Amino acid sequence: MNLIQTNLETMFNPEIVAVIGASDNSGKLGFHVMKSLINGGFSGKISPINPGSPEIWGLKAYPSINDYADRIDLAIVVVPAKLVPGVFTECVEKGVKGIVLITAGFKEIDDPAGADLHEKIAGIVNHAGIPVIGPNTFGMINFNTNLNASFTPEFSLLKKGKIALVSQSGGISHLLGFLAMRADARFSKIIGLGNRLNVDFAEIIDYLMDDSETGVIMLYMEGINHPMRFIEAVKKHRNRKPVIIYKTGSSEKSDQAAKSHTGSMAGKHEIYQGAFSQAGILFLDSAESLLDTAKAFASSEIPEGPGVAVLSGQAGPGMAACDVCEACGLKIVSFERRTQQSINEYLPPLALRTNPVDMGPAWYNASAQSGIVRSVMNDSNVDAILLLIMFASANVNLLRELSDFLTAFKQSKPIISCILAPPGVWDDEIRHLEEAGALVNYPTPEQAVRALANLVKYRSIQFCPKTNTKG
Amino acid sequence: MNLIQTNLETMFNPEIVAVIGASDNSGKLGFHVMKSLINGGFSGKISPINPGSPEIWGLKAYPSINDYADRIDLAIVVVPAKLVPGVFTECVEKGVKGIVLITAGFKEIDDPAGADLHEKIAGIVNHAGIPVIGPNTFGMINFNTNLNASFTPEFSLLKKGKIALVSQSGGISHLLGFLAMRADARFSKIIGLGNRLNVDFAEIIDYLMDDSETGVIMLYMEGINHPMRFIEAVKKHRNRKPVIIYKTGSSEKSDQAAKSHTGSMAGKHEIYQGAFSQAGILFLDSAESLLDTAKAFASSEIPEGPGVAVLSGQAGPGMAACDVCEACGLKIVSFERRTQQSINEYLPPLALRTNPVDMGPAWYNASAQSGIVRSVMNDSNVDAILLLIMFASANVNLLRELSDFLTAFKQSKPIISCILAPPGVWDDEIRHLEEAGALVNYPTPEQAVRALANLVKYRSIQFCPKTNTKG
Repeated sequence: MNLIQTNLETMFNPEIVAVIGASDNSGKLGFHVMKSLINGGFSGKISPINPGSPEIWGLKAYPSINDYADRIDLAIVVVPAKLVPGVFTECVEKGVKGIVLITAGFKEIDDPAGADLHEKIAGIVNHAGIPVIGPNTFGMINFNTNLNASFTPEFSLLKKGKIALVSQSGGISHLLGFLAMRADARFSKIIGLGNRLNVDFAEIIDYLMDDSETGVIMLYMEGINHPMRFIEAVKKHRNRKPVIIYKTGSSEKSDQAAKSHTGSMAGKHEIYQGAFSQAGILFLDSAESLLDTAKAFASSEIPEGPGVAVLSGQAGPGMAACDVCEACGLKIVSFERRTQQSINEYLPPLALRTNPVDMGPAWYNASAQSGIVRSVMNDSNVDAILLLIMFASANVNLLRELSDFLTAFKQSKPIISCILAPPGVWDDEIRHLEEAGALVNYPTPEQAVRALANLVKYRSIQFCPKTNTKG
Repeated sequence: MNLIQTNLETMFNPEIVAVIGASDNSGKLGFHVMKSLINGGFSGKISPINPGSPEIWGLKAYPSINDYADRIDLAIVVVPAKLVPGVFTECVEKGVKGIVLITAGFKEIDDPAGADLHEKIAGIVNHAGIPVIGPNTFGMINFNTNLNASFTPEFSLLKKGKIALVSQSGGISHLLGFLAMRADARFSKIIGLGNRLNVDFAEIIDYLMDDSETGVIMLYMEGINHPMRFIEAVKKHRNRKPVIIYKTGSSEKSDQAAKSHTGSMAGKHEIYQGAFSQAGILFLDSAESLLDTAKAFASSEIPEGPGVAVLSGQAGPGMAACDVCEACGLKIVSFERRTQQSINEYLPPLALRTNPVDMGPAWYNASAQSGIVRSVMNDSNVDAILLLIMFASANVNLLRELSDFLTAFKQSKPIISCILAPPGVWDDEIRHLEEAGALVNYPTPEQAVRALANLVKYRSIQFCPKTNTKG
């Protein structure tokens, strides 16, 4: 492990954090960084640095890090760009192990002075082996240690889980975070790479592959300077953890914008897509799909194949699911004879007893529904179950009863579900089912099917067919 | 107007409703129908009918409708299928104006006795001109009169608005209703057609085109017996109100399932799609897209053309939007010179000042953002604005300030937005902006772009280019 990697480990798990540019003024980012650290519940020491204040956020502040007696593991820097070279020099002298550089105004600005400044500060830290996340980033969060080293305290509303998000855009990171709050997707780390002074996708992949808290790595990318270095980094760890990516730049306008925004090369979308797929990276086409798929990887086994059983509490959502299944390459299999016989015993002679199965007639009857799930789970044609249940006043108790069965039952195959109710009605039951590892839930049949299809697709782009990410 | 149409008007706006099969037993659908009527706030008279109880839900109950002295405008029927012929005969004798037949067990079951029963009850009511919604339906809701004539009281959680939902599936109706609660999409009516005894899509289109509460008609369809009758009904009202449709059956499995489930012909998806488009019906590919598009039609003008300005608070979501715009046929236009000059005055010399515009540098500055919106709104190349803003702790006040501008500003062109924050944080501001008609908001850039693209596509499939649905 090289020095950057060793220091990354320290900076993600620091005992002492300095905020250089800390502030009590809510108009300053240094205020929000302090708020993130304190409200996020970080248990280590926090040292605000600001020459203008003896106390910030109720903590003793220091004019510079040199005035702070103890060592500093992580420095979060929010001073104006022109002050960064001086601050970096002090960080090197102090032996700081890692830096989050939130400050903008480097390679991303039109003025060539920005690029010059970028080179200058890189020169200061690189020879010391100090990893820098940023510049031009919102920061990073390590949910395992409640370290919110970002200017957005609200990231701490997210729950701890197995998804690592690495992103080149603050906006997309915030979008994904806020969607994840609604979807109850859970994170190990969120890392805003910004302009990638010396910590690029390749370095982060190396780090996260060894991170025991992370089960799946989701990336948002606009453009990178050294795509082969990134691809080699992923290939090196092939089959250890799923790497999934959403990359903008498929349109001419966004490609141009990426070039400007991140100060890096963008380039032909199709070339990226092909190269990434060959490296075993799953290529996705939207932020929502990236999050949905990460959630599936974090909580579900990867199905052995594309054979799906569609079990729905009402016929319509089952049909909607079938359409998307077929479009996504999943197969609505025929059941084995004994499975079909079993279903026919549970359901009256209505038409939809073959796949898709409309369990509507067993609407009030959780034991019939449980029996159907059990039979289908044992069918060798079936690789995964799609379970689609809409709330109605008359079936309000169904999910609780079904939940008792599903959480006790040893699932041999993934259950991906769309179980939906008015806000607040089945939220606890769904959370319980997800936390028990009984299923992974989505708010629409389409999202459920696409997430499942992406699990199957991931297997197909791996060389080694058996991969297990479930913890 | 024929008798069915006249009676439809009465049954959607009844003064006296009988629930035939009303119950105090929560295991019966007759319980939930009573709950819907009472908890939904229906202000007319409710007459529970059940030979076994003198009082139901605290109201005097009658053995049969013949025992009820007053007239009955609407009868909601939830008795077992075999009792329906007798009940229908009584309804004819009583002069009931319309029936919601929730009972299942007709054409949709395997047993040919179901189809026979269907024909039998049709014979009873058809000559009397009594419209029947159902059988095999959850019911219908008229939000204008707080009439929840369904077995799902929770539909009354939805707010009154301009979208009419007509659906062949209870499951999809519930799915759409629960998604609409989260999306704050608002309804005039929700109608579950079920097996369509004598009220089919064509009759409902005729009715809703004259319904002053309805601004846009969204349909979920599995299959119909007389597609040309439906198409002619829509064509007859061409350009009066948008009709948008989501139809399952693109896959072999769902096509078969539709045939079984609804007791009707399904058939080639592409043929439907082509014929519907020719009739000016917008064809959509998912429940989410149907709802998102309905919400746009209900609250936005239809843009004059495909020219879009992408204004984002952070660069990433703007790029994501550009990719989807290009894929959906929208055009990221070049601004007129004076627009560009104005933007350049508001923003520092960062790269993303052309379209897409990254308003990040004006992050704390609502007046700069307002100025940019105003300039772009006046640009003759621009037909609509996409506004994408992610919350961050430091910009918490931005939306309130921007909101003051946007609600006071007379928008000449639609603003479709993706403004997103942690749950609860900007909800009030977004609702306020939507209620003021300032914008239509979605939780992802993709959804915002697709909804806008569907407005533009709708115009392109109309013969007459000017259509105004905004109330």
